[in-house]
Amino acid sequence: MAKALVLESKGKLSIRDIDLPSHVGANDVKIKIHNVGVCGSDVHYYTHGKIGPFVVNEPMVLGHEASGTVIEVGKNVTNLNVGDRVCMEPGIPNLHSKATQLGIYNVDPDVRFWATPPIHGCLTETVVHPAAYTFKLPDNVSFAEGAFVEPFATGVHACVKAQIKPGDVCLVAGCGPIGILTALAALASGASKVFISDVAAPKLAIAGQYEGLIPVNITKESLVDKVRAECGKDWGVDVALEASGHPSSYDPLLACVRPGGTIVFVGMPVDKVPFDLVTAQSKEVRMETVFRYANVYDRAVSLIASGKVNLKPLISGVYPFEKAIEAFERAASAKPDDVKLQIQLVE
Amino acid sequence: MAKALVLESKGKLSIRDIDLPSHVGANDVKIKIHNVGVCGSDVHYYTHGKIGPFVVNEPMVLGHEASGTVIEVGKNVTNLNVGDRVCMEPGIPNLHSKATQLGIYNVDPDVRFWATPPIHGCLTETVVHPAAYTFKLPDNVSFAEGAFVEPFATGVHACVKAQIKPGDVCLVAGCGPIGILTALAALASGASKVFISDVAAPKLAIAGQYEGLIPVNITKESLVDKVRAECGKDWGVDVALEASGHPSSYDPLLACVRPGGTIVFVGMPVDKVPFDLVTAQSKEVRMETVFRYANVYDRAVSLIASGKVNLKPLISGVYPFEKAIEAFERAASAKPDDVKLQIQLVE
Amino acid sequence: MAKALVLESKGKLSIRDIDLPSHVGANDVKIKIHNVGVCGSDVHYYTHGKIGPFVVNEPMVLGHEASGTVIEVGKNVTNLNVGDRVCMEPGIPNLHSKATQLGIYNVDPDVRFWATPPIHGCLTETVVHPAAYTFKLPDNVSFAEGAFVEPFATGVHACVKAQIKPGDVCLVAGCGPIGILTALAALASGASKVFISDVAAPKLAIAGQYEGLIPVNITKESLVDKVRAECGKDWGVDVALEASGHPSSYDPLLACVRPGGTIVFVGMPVDKVPFDLVTAQSKEVRMETVFRYANVYDRAVSLIASGKVNLKPLISGVYPFEKAIEAFERAASAKPDDVKLQIQLVE
Amino acid sequence: MAKALVLESKGKLSIRDIDLPSHVGANDVKIKIHNVGVCGSDVHYYTHGKIGPFVVNEPMVLGHEASGTVIEVGKNVTNLNVGDRVCMEPGIPNLHSKATQLGIYNVDPDVRFWATPPIHGCLTETVVHPAAYTFKLPDNVSFAEGAFVEPFATGVHACVKAQIKPGDVCLVAGCGPIGILTALAALASGASKVFISDVAAPKLAIAGQYEGLIPVNITKESLVDKVRAECGKDWGVDVALEASGHPSSYDPLLACVRPGGTIVFVGMPVDKVPFDLVTAQSKEVRMETVFRYANVYDRAVSLIASGKVNLKPLISGVYPFEKAIEAFERAASAKPDDVKLQIQLVE
Repeated sequence: MAKALVLESKGKLSIRDIDLPSHVGANDVKIKIHNVGVCGSDVHYYTHGKIGPFVVNEPMVLGHEASGTVIEVGKNVTNLNVGDRVCMEPGIPNLHSKATQLGIYNVDPDVRFWATPPIHGCLTETVVHPAAYTFKLPDNVSFAEGAFVEPFATGVHACVKAQIKPGDVCLVAGCGPIGILTALAALASGASKVFISDVAAPKLAIAGQYEGLIPVNITKESLVDKVRAECGKDWGVDVALEASGHPSSYDPLLACVRPGGTIVFVGMPVDKVPFDLVTAQSKEVRMETVFRYANVYDRAVSLIASGKVNLKPLISGVYPFEKAIEAFERAASAKPDDVKLQIQLVE
Repeated sequence: MAKALVLESKGKLSIRDIDLPSHVGANDVKIKIHNVGVCGSDVHYYTHGKIGPFVVNEPMVLGHEASGTVIEVGKNVTNLNVGDRVCMEPGIPNLHSKATQLGIYNVDPDVRFWATPPIHGCLTETVVHPAAYTFKLPDNVSFAEGAFVEPFATGVHACVKAQIKPGDVCLVAGCGPIGILTALAALASGASKVFISDVAAPKLAIAGQYEGLIPVNITKESLVDKVRAECGKDWGVDVALEASGHPSSYDPLLACVRPGGTIVFVGMPVDKVPFDLVTAQSKEVRMETVFRYANVYDRAVSLIASGKVNLKPLISGVYPFEKAIEAFERAASAKPDDVKLQIQLVE
Repeated sequence: MAKALVLESKGKLSIRDIDLPSHVGANDVKIKIHNVGVCGSDVHYYTHGKIGPFVVNEPMVLGHEASGTVIEVGKNVTNLNVGDRVCMEPGIPNLHSKATQLGIYNVDPDVRFWATPPIHGCLTETVVHPAAYTFKLPDNVSFAEGAFVEPFATGVHACVKAQIKPGDVCLVAGCGPIGILTALAALASGASKVFISDVAAPKLAIAGQYEGLIPVNITKESLVDKVRAECGKDWGVDVALEASGHPSSYDPLLACVRPGGTIVFVGMPVDKVPFDLVTAQSKEVRMETVFRYANVYDRAVSLIASGKVNLKPLISGVYPFEKAIEAFERAASAKPDDVKLQIQLVE
Repeated sequence: MAKALVLESKGKLSIRDIDLPSHVGANDVKIKIHNVGVCGSDVHYYTHGKIGPFVVNEPMVLGHEASGTVIEVGKNVTNLNVGDRVCMEPGIPNLHSKATQLGIYNVDPDVRFWATPPIHGCLTETVVHPAAYTFKLPDNVSFAEGAFVEPFATGVHACVKAQIKPGDVCLVAGCGPIGILTALAALASGASKVFISDVAAPKLAIAGQYEGLIPVNITKESLVDKVRAECGKDWGVDVALEASGHPSSYDPLLACVRPGGTIVFVGMPVDKVPFDLVTAQSKEVRMETVFRYANVYDRAVSLIASGKVNLKPLISGVYPFEKAIEAFERAASAKPDDVKLQIQLVE
């Protein structure tokens, strides 16, 4: 039995004891959880009780953005020791699947992902996790940053798939948490500058604090005009990353990308998108799609440790475990200048 | 002055003398035209007077799929000699553009392409063409096959962009000329088998003559079921190539492609496509788009010469130049078992 | 206890009972072995007792090129059933390693590979093997071809790494079993023609039976001249694959590859190679290296099943199990027109 | 007639009038030269009269690292205007060649490169240059930085070919000008940290001033041990870039690169390299080679303008044109703490 933040059913959270697996297998580690970030998906399960086909039918522990300290180590584990400060990749694939064999374990149909029904999440005192999906934090990376690795990994993965080249001009549509993290990942991946567009001035103001990010408020100025002023009338950005999932985003992206350029679809739209394929074809745009991430957690940690990416200004509030429900209520209110709220389980 | 097949205006063709450029520059060759294929776009200009933004406002020579014999050589030309049998790439980019410098000259906004208004085509006695865009035919490749290189190049280019790996299972949606050429290119590129789907039984019957092509009549059987029977319930084809441009094509393609697979969009839909982006994302599908071709003409010629690709069964009829208008009328009637009609200008 | 071909020590083979693991784990299958190919490495262990750092210090079962029939299935296995005819990938990586996570399990330092000391091989009546590394044979692929998949997979892997494009002109140096299999893989991967060079006329004669392979006897003609006659004075082959491991091979390869071309090093030279790096640099040659294979077994099986690759003419002799030692003695005598000898354990 | 720094013959420099082409073609611009960097190759022609097959047989203007101001514009030029501050790519390919068509114009056998005999360089008052190979400098990039783009472009090109991914750990062997520029390019391309090794303490001290570069003095510590301490016993750096050309460099690089990693050969060794191919193969190392650069000048300019790369500390001295010979003498003396000397032709 362990104390956990449990989503009992739609709209009903409680902090209570719950029975969770505690056997440490030969290739596992046990981790005392320190920080857990509140993700939009956690909030969505709280407020809606489901995301697409994933429905909360029985009580489920929330949380999948976590850091902590190793407190027990399985007998085959060689990369980690008790006392190591770590962060954890929340999706565990079937090691015997074809997708895993190919190295694209994130698209394994059998992947088990924290806080995706019916799998419990990590907003609890301790978790058991495969060592291969647990990553040591260098001394100069805090637990708060460690818990931030998960959403940042999405941005890094998007940039790996984009194959950003040094000096690329990039564009990110959407200045929510994933948008801003993707834009920072693009800068760290070699982009010389990154336009980032949104309709919300407070979000853009946060992005604008970073050198190299160029906020564009599309309620006030034309994204296409701004890009053309930079890149030339017949040219455009090398890489555009869609992080809003909003139907109005696709046409401007297609107008802004250069011939032979790349679009990466990170944001997930609710419905089918009316897509102007002929415009993409006339420029031979390559389009990559992103589903979580694979093989980038160590990259994300290294970039934070290197000082190239500073996530600290994006942590808008940290709540003690006993106020976890308060954190979820604030997250559900969607304040435009909140980027990331976290819950800290250890003093 | 040279004799040419001129589209005077929508619906009005004539064979008559017309004034065309005849100066052979230092890097050019002059070619006596032998065979010219009739393409759907030629027919569309004939029947509709325009394609999208390209409008026939003044008389224009048609034709862009050509082979012939070199009859004059510019002073800097080293790769060709008088008497060489050749085929010609119909689009000539601005050699000083950024896209050309990058090697993606097909998406140069300034490209000049035969029989795309206001540029004259090649259905005439002689043309002057840059030697760099003129390719020698081996002895075992006929003039008819040489004129077939142009549409086949589209299929080869699609397969280059797909990055087909040896043993891939592929799927081509659409069994028109481009679909069948793309399917043959996929086989020649390493595919172990290629499903090809359509609603027209006569077209599928032609495809079915080729070993390795598996025709699927989607009016009679489920494409998705057929692919799953081959590839497994949770898996799918490695590469899907869309060659129909039809709105009903996109959902089945997304259902048929495997996690981590690739879709190449070859066919150009008339309108925006309602696209199920989330399904693509959940499999991390890479999507490539194709606009004509670049740097594949020599590849296409080599594949034909090697015997790996046999285009001869796809030539449905060859007309002498004086019956060129008859060829266009037959093409406009869209007989389902016609794949390619050609016009032969030399005995 | 099972009957096996045991290398007792250098030069001493016996067919005898030996104790081998027989527990079928949840993700394993048990296979009754049918055919096993004799590989140069098996023979080298027999004649020299070691290969580089791998020394035969205690009795070891030989053989790693195998096909057979599934006779038992672990409880988690879903891709195979009792009675399935299969072939097996002989290297099993640590599923929890970084290399395996990346999908490059062949370079996992912990990989366990059949008949590489101290790991027993498969020249025995039954083996237990992970289902994920066991591949079903289609009905039209024989057991003999199934046991041929292993060496052919090396050639397919080399071509995957080469990223052969449709129409490429290729060159393979070395016409031993791996050279000829690599050349056939290159043809099946899209090459329009493949030069293959050697000093041994009987080997070249076997290669010359295949359409698309162009044998070059370098004791009689210049490889460089022959390639230039085909590709032009300033150009060359798109992809060169080194399959001889012989020091004299590297300079001609560098001379034959085109600017921007690729060299794949398949053969392993005994000593350091005096390598003309500046010539490679002046053409910006990309160089790939190959260590066994990963994620190509299914590709290799598909290519054989498709009829694109015919390995049957390369099977020079099949011996019953009781004559296995005779097979090894013939293999050790290195007859120049023997490509592959096999041992058949089941009638 | 224009004033220029002329290498009359080996060891003999003069500043004098010389007759140079001055016709501005339709696609050309004329540039008033501002700064020119002194490159090791310029110095080598001065001290040795040749580099490999390139021999100075008649007086030749030196210099190929240049910036300046556009003073005349050809009639077809649209990307530049009189008054633009620019830098120039010194190699001009044949626009009609196969290599140029493919976008790899740097390996066009017909490329004409400044100050490579018999082509004159740019250490003169004005030059005429194709606009397509002339790049505008943003306001915040100085003429000195503009003239530094040329050698920096080599480093950027090496990193593009390396396909550095965000968070990669890199290693550069050699801390000369190209080594340090390559290391800075790697950092700007996404590397989280870059080891840089040399035997010369003063050079390493300059590299050590940059955050993210980790100097390793191989006369005092083991490069392999240092890399293993960071990357683990069985792993290594993701990308190693060889920038010394020294025979002792290759074995440590092979020991330091991880399984599945990449080595890029930038430095050109004088002789053949005894290369341990088997070690490369056992890790399946990809090896890329670099010859100058293509399609990276704009990238290099953007990275400098972005502030991501600060080249100013590497400019060790700037000489007025009348003291150009003094600059060459200092460069020929090879002071270990000199990185780059420049000559300024305009006040």
